[in-house]
Amino acid sequence: MKNSRGFASDNNSGIHPEIFKAIAEANSGHVIAYGDDPYTEKAITLFKNHFGGECEVFFVLTGTGANVLGLSAITKPYNAIICAETAHIAVDECGAPERFTGCKLISIQTGNGKLNPSMIIPYLHSVGFEHHVQPHVISISQSTELGTVYSLAEVKELADFAHNNNMFLHMDGARLANAVVTLNCSFSEITRLVGVDVLSFGGTKNGLLFGEAVIFFNAKLAEDFKYIRKQGMQLASKMRFISAQFIPYFEKEIWKTNASHANHMARLLYEKLKVIPGVSITQPIESNGVFAIIPEQAIEQLQKKYFFYIWNYETNEIRLMTSFDTQEKDIADFVETLKNLI
Amino acid sequence: MKNSRGFASDNNSGIHPEIFKAIAEANSGHVIAYGDDPYTEKAITLFKNHFGGECEVFFVLTGTGANVLGLSAITKPYNAIICAETAHIAVDECGAPERFTGCKLISIQTGNGKLNPSMIIPYLHSVGFEHHVQPHVISISQSTELGTVYSLAEVKELADFAHNNNMFLHMDGARLANAVVTLNCSFSEITRLVGVDVLSFGGTKNGLLFGEAVIFFNAKLAEDFKYIRKQGMQLASKMRFISAQFIPYFEKEIWKTNASHANHMARLLYEKLKVIPGVSITQPIESNGVFAIIPEQAIEQLQKKYFFYIWNYETNEIRLMTSFDTQEKDIADFVETLKNLI
Amino acid sequence: MKNSRGFASDNNSGIHPEIFKAIAEANSGHVIAYGDDPYTEKAITLFKNHFGGECEVFFVLTGTGANVLGLSAITKPYNAIICAETAHIAVDECGAPERFTGCKLISIQTGNGKLNPSMIIPYLHSVGFEHHVQPHVISISQSTELGTVYSLAEVKELADFAHNNNMFLHMDGARLANAVVTLNCSFSEITRLVGVDVLSFGGTKNGLLFGEAVIFFNAKLAEDFKYIRKQGMQLASKMRFISAQFIPYFEKEIWKTNASHANHMARLLYEKLKVIPGVSITQPIESNGVFAIIPEQAIEQLQKKYFFYIWNYETNEIRLMTSFDTQEKDIADFVETLKNLI
Amino acid sequence: MKNSRGFASDNNSGIHPEIFKAIAEANSGHVIAYGDDPYTEKAITLFKNHFGGECEVFFVLTGTGANVLGLSAITKPYNAIICAETAHIAVDECGAPERFTGCKLISIQTGNGKLNPSMIIPYLHSVGFEHHVQPHVISISQSTELGTVYSLAEVKELADFAHNNNMFLHMDGARLANAVVTLNCSFSEITRLVGVDVLSFGGTKNGLLFGEAVIFFNAKLAEDFKYIRKQGMQLASKMRFISAQFIPYFEKEIWKTNASHANHMARLLYEKLKVIPGVSITQPIESNGVFAIIPEQAIEQLQKKYFFYIWNYETNEIRLMTSFDTQEKDIADFVETLKNLI
Repeated sequence: MKNSRGFASDNNSGIHPEIFKAIAEANSGHVIAYGDDPYTEKAITLFKNHFGGECEVFFVLTGTGANVLGLSAITKPYNAIICAETAHIAVDECGAPERFTGCKLISIQTGNGKLNPSMIIPYLHSVGFEHHVQPHVISISQSTELGTVYSLAEVKELADFAHNNNMFLHMDGARLANAVVTLNCSFSEITRLVGVDVLSFGGTKNGLLFGEAVIFFNAKLAEDFKYIRKQGMQLASKMRFISAQFIPYFEKEIWKTNASHANHMARLLYEKLKVIPGVSITQPIESNGVFAIIPEQAIEQLQKKYFFYIWNYETNEIRLMTSFDTQEKDIADFVETLKNLI
Repeated sequence: MKNSRGFASDNNSGIHPEIFKAIAEANSGHVIAYGDDPYTEKAITLFKNHFGGECEVFFVLTGTGANVLGLSAITKPYNAIICAETAHIAVDECGAPERFTGCKLISIQTGNGKLNPSMIIPYLHSVGFEHHVQPHVISISQSTELGTVYSLAEVKELADFAHNNNMFLHMDGARLANAVVTLNCSFSEITRLVGVDVLSFGGTKNGLLFGEAVIFFNAKLAEDFKYIRKQGMQLASKMRFISAQFIPYFEKEIWKTNASHANHMARLLYEKLKVIPGVSITQPIESNGVFAIIPEQAIEQLQKKYFFYIWNYETNEIRLMTSFDTQEKDIADFVETLKNLI
Repeated sequence: MKNSRGFASDNNSGIHPEIFKAIAEANSGHVIAYGDDPYTEKAITLFKNHFGGECEVFFVLTGTGANVLGLSAITKPYNAIICAETAHIAVDECGAPERFTGCKLISIQTGNGKLNPSMIIPYLHSVGFEHHVQPHVISISQSTELGTVYSLAEVKELADFAHNNNMFLHMDGARLANAVVTLNCSFSEITRLVGVDVLSFGGTKNGLLFGEAVIFFNAKLAEDFKYIRKQGMQLASKMRFISAQFIPYFEKEIWKTNASHANHMARLLYEKLKVIPGVSITQPIESNGVFAIIPEQAIEQLQKKYFFYIWNYETNEIRLMTSFDTQEKDIADFVETLKNLI
Repeated sequence: MKNSRGFASDNNSGIHPEIFKAIAEANSGHVIAYGDDPYTEKAITLFKNHFGGECEVFFVLTGTGANVLGLSAITKPYNAIICAETAHIAVDECGAPERFTGCKLISIQTGNGKLNPSMIIPYLHSVGFEHHVQPHVISISQSTELGTVYSLAEVKELADFAHNNNMFLHMDGARLANAVVTLNCSFSEITRLVGVDVLSFGGTKNGLLFGEAVIFFNAKLAEDFKYIRKQGMQLASKMRFISAQFIPYFEKEIWKTNASHANHMARLLYEKLKVIPGVSITQPIESNGVFAIIPEQAIEQLQKKYFFYIWNYETNEIRLMTSFDTQEKDIADFVETLKNLI
C-alpha cells in the first residue's frame, strides 16, 4: 500500500526507523509481562535522567489514557479540573475525564489556548462550600492544541498559583517535545523545575508506534498509580514494546530530531502560506501546527486531495499539523494546490 | 539482551515473525488515524469472513479493555454479570469491570472454570426486585483460565439459557484460538452460531505485539460502541499497526499455527510431568495450560531458575503456560530441572 | 426554639400545616415499605390526574436526587447535557450529575437563566464524531435559578428543537409551582403538552417536609427507573410519609396557595426595594426570587441581621427568596433595615 | 386508613409518638437549610456524648446512603470491601456500593451472618499485586441481617485484624440499637472503643420517620465527607427535621425503649413458634428477627393474611421482624393463624 503524506495530524505518520529498530531488537525470547522486564527498567532510568531523578514513571497506551489516569490520581470525584476550552481533555476525549474521575471540567475561554491565573481566580469563590465542586487541578497543554507554547515563567506562575491555592498543576505533554525544542530548554526545566506535578508525556505524535508515559514529580502522588493504571485498562501486557521505543528516543535524541524537524516544517509551511492572498494565519507558529483561515470554496476543493481538519466552521479556519516525516516537497505540493484553488 | 523462554504466561513471549513483518509493511507514509485506514478496513473484512459476516468488529488495546468495554455495551449499572470465580474479569482486572460498568460481578465456584445453567438458576430469584442487582450477562472464558474448553453444545446451552432469561452471553476469548484448535471447529461455529452475543477476541497471547477485538454478533448492540471505546480510553491513534497484524493472522493462518503449536507443547509438557513421582496434574489438558501440584520445596527451588505463577498457595498448585514459541528443548530443560529437585 | 423568618431560601421555611397534618394521619399501623402502600398509590393517581395520565411517577428524597436520577435514565455516559451556566445541576449539586451519569455538562452563558435553540446549535457540530461527547439532553429550570419563567411557547420551541436533534428535554421543576402560578396554566400544559420528556417535580421548596418526584412522560423511558432509584440511594423506606404529603398538596391545592403567596410576596418585596435609592433590580420578577444590587457596605451590615446569599461578589448582587410563609411584616422589617443602612 | 401490623420488616412501622412530637416542635419559622441550624447542632452534641466525643457525625437520608457514602469515604475504586454474603450492602442495595465506590465487594459465606478473621485471610494473598483489587474495608452488620449479634470481643478481634492488615472496619448499624440492648453495653463500647472506624447509625428501623447518621471515629477520615454527602445526593435541605428526631431519641432514650421492646417481642414470638410442630427456628434470637422454616403450604396460606419475606425458597425459611410497635396481641394472632394452617 502506498500512503501519501498530508497535514491532518502528527499521528497520521508512522514509526521512525530508529524506533522501529528498537522494537525489532526487543522481539527476542520471553520477558516477564506487564513491565517487570529489563527494557522497562532501562527506559525508566532514561526518563529519570532527563527529568532529574525525582520522578515516578508509568507507561500507558494512549494519550487519553495518560491524561485521564494522571488526573484520576490527583483528584476526588467532587473536585473540578480547570482547563482551557480548547484542551484535549475538554473536547477530544469523549468525556473520558468526567466519566473516569467523576470530576467536573471547568473550561475557560482563551484566545491562544493558554491559561493564566487571572482567568482562574473567579472560580475559587466556591472553595469550601459543599454545594459546589472544589477546584483541585489546573491542567495545561504544552504545546497547546493551538500550537502555542507556554514560557518557563508562565508555567511557573501557574504552578505557584496552583500550589498557593491547594491545587495541582497537570501538563498534557502529548507534544511536549515540540515545546521543548522551541524553548531550547531541558525536559526537567519546563516540568519539574517550574512546578508541574503530573505530566502526560507523549510519544505517539512524535514517531513512536504507540506509548505514552505518566510522570509524577512527587512520589507520594504515585503511590497507588499501578492500581489506577490496571483498573484503568492501560496496563500493556507486552510492555517491553512500549519501553523499548523510549530507549533510542532518549539515547539517540530521536525526540529532538523529530520535534525539531516537525517544528521547522511548520515554520516553512507558514512562510509559504502567509504570503498567499486570501489566507490569514490565526496563531503564532510556536510548534508544529499552523492555523489558517482560507476561502471556504478552497477548503472544499483542497479536501478532495488532502485530509485535514476544519477547526472552526464559522470562520473557515483549518488546522495543519506537520510531522517528523513531513518533506519540503509535501509542503510545496500542498501550497501549490492551494494557490491554484484560490 | 538475551531473554530465555519459560512457562510463566503466553504473554511473556514476543511477536511472531509474520506478524512483525506486517507491522513493518504498514509503516509507510501517512494514513488517517483512529481506524479510518485501509489496513483496518481489510482486517475487519477478514474478521467478517471468519465470523460469518453478521458482526461488528472494533479493535482495542488490551484484553481487559476488550472485556470491560464489551460488557459495558450490554449492561446498565444496576445489572449483574455472572461468571466463574476464576474468570479473568473477576480476579485479574483489578476491579475494572465493576469500576467501569458499575455492575456487580457474581462469581460462581466451579471445579474446572466452566459454568453451566444449573449453577446460575439460584441467582435468578432476584429478577424484578428493585433491591437486587438484575442479572443481565453470563460471561464465560474460552478457553478458560484453567485451560479447559467448552464444547459447542455447552456454549449453546448457556447461550440458550441466557437468551431465555433475558440475558446476554459474553465470551472472553483471550485464548479463543487455542480452543478452536482443540475443538477443530471454525471461529463462527464456537461463537456466532452457538449464540454468543459479544466476544473479546484475543491476539496478544497468540503472537501479536498488542491488539484485541471486540466483536458484536448483533449490530444493534454495537450501535454506540465507538463512543464507549473512545471514552473507555481504548481507541488507538495509529490503529493501522493493530489492524495490520490481523491480516496475516487470518490470511496466513498464523492464529492456527501458533495455537496448535502452543497446545501441542502443553500436551508434551503434561506427558513429561505426569510421570514424575510427586507431581499431580489437576486439570485436563485442553489448550495451552498445565496445572500441577508439585512439592512445596521444589516450587521454591524451581522459581530461582524459572518465573511462573503459583495458582494455589494452599495446595502448592502451579500454572504453566506454553506459547507459540515454546520449544521442545524448553520443556526438556524445565522437566529435567524439576526432576532433579524432587 | 424561636426561628425568625428571612429571605435566604425557600427551603429555610418549614412544613405547611396541611402537609404536616397529612404526615400525622399517615402515622398509623404498618404499611409495606418502599412504596407499595395505599398513600403512594393515591398520590401517584393525583399526579396522573394533574399531568394527564400519560406519565410515570417516582418519589425521591432530594432535588439533586431527582435531577441526577432523571438525567441518568435518559443518558449514556458519553452524552452531553446542555444547560444554562446558572443551572442547579451545573453549580449547586457538587458535580453529582457528572459523577453519577458520567456525562459532561455543557454550561451556556445566558443573561436571564433561559436557554434557546440558537444558543445550542454551535454544540451540535460534534454529533457523530467519536472523539466528542454527544449532546443528548437539554436541561432547563422552570422557574429558573434567576427567578425568570419560560413561556409555554419557549418550552415548546426547545422541546421541538431537542426532538428534531435526537435529544430529550429535561425540566428541573424544583420551583415549578411558582412558574405555573405565574403562567396561569396547568401542570400538564407547561410540561407534557409542550414536549417535556422528564420532569423533576419539587415539593420541598413549596411547603413539604421533604419529597420530590421524577416524572416521565414517555413510559418507555421509565422502564428501569426503579432500579436506578434504588441504586441511586433515593428509595425511601417509609415512603408513605413522602406520598402522604402530596395528597393535600394536590387535593387541597396547597401547591397553588403556597406558590401564589410566595410569588406575591416577591412582587411586594420588589416594589419596596426598587424605589430605594442605590438599589437596582437585576432580573424581572416572575416567580419568588428577587435579585438586586445593593451597596457593598449595606450587604455586610444586613448580613448581621439576616442570612442570605450573595449572588455575584463582583457586582454586589444579592438573591432574596420568598416562601409560602413569608409575611408582609417580614418584608417591611427587611426593607426598613436596608433603608436605614443605605 | 387503617393499617394493620405485621412482621414483614421493622421499616413497615411508622413514627414513634415522641419522635413525631419533636418534628412538630421543630416546625416553626425559618432556619438555615442543609444543617447549619440549632437542631442539628444539638443532635450532633448528643451523638458525641453517646459515642465519646471523638467522632464526626453526618446525617443522611437512607440506610443505603449511609453505607455507600461511608464506604466511599474510606476506599478508592481499586479496593475491595469484604462482607458477609448476607450483608445488606451485598444483596439489598441494588449494587449501589459497587456503582458509587467503584470497588468490588467480596462476599463471604457464613452460617450466621457474622465474619471472623479466619474467613478473610485467604483474600489477602492479592495484596500488592496490581492485577487484583486491594482489600481495604471489612464491613459487618450489627445486629446482622440474620438477627445475630457480634460480641464486643468479636468486633474488637475484627477491628484489630483489619488495622493490622491496613484495612478499616465499617459497621452497618441499621439495627445497632437492638444489638446494644442485647449486649447491655453503651454505643461507644460496641463501636469506637472496640475499633470501629466508620459506622452507619440507623434510625428509620427503630421509630424515626427517616434519618440515618454516618459516624467517623477518626476525624481525618471525615475531612471531605461533606462533599461526598452532597455529591452523593444525601444532603437534606430541611435537615432540621432529621436532626430534631435524634434529640428525644437520645434525651428520652427512645432508642432503648424501642429496641428493647422489639427484641422482647422477637423473643416472645420465638417462644411461641418454637413449640409448634413442623416449625423449626434457624437462627439464635439475639435481636428483633426470627428466622423459621415452616411447611411450604402454610407459607402460601399465611401470606394471604400477612405480608412477610421468604428468606430461602429452597428450604422454606421465612423472616419475621418485630418492631417498636409490635403488640403481644399481634403475635398471638399470627401464631394462632399459623397453628391453624399447620
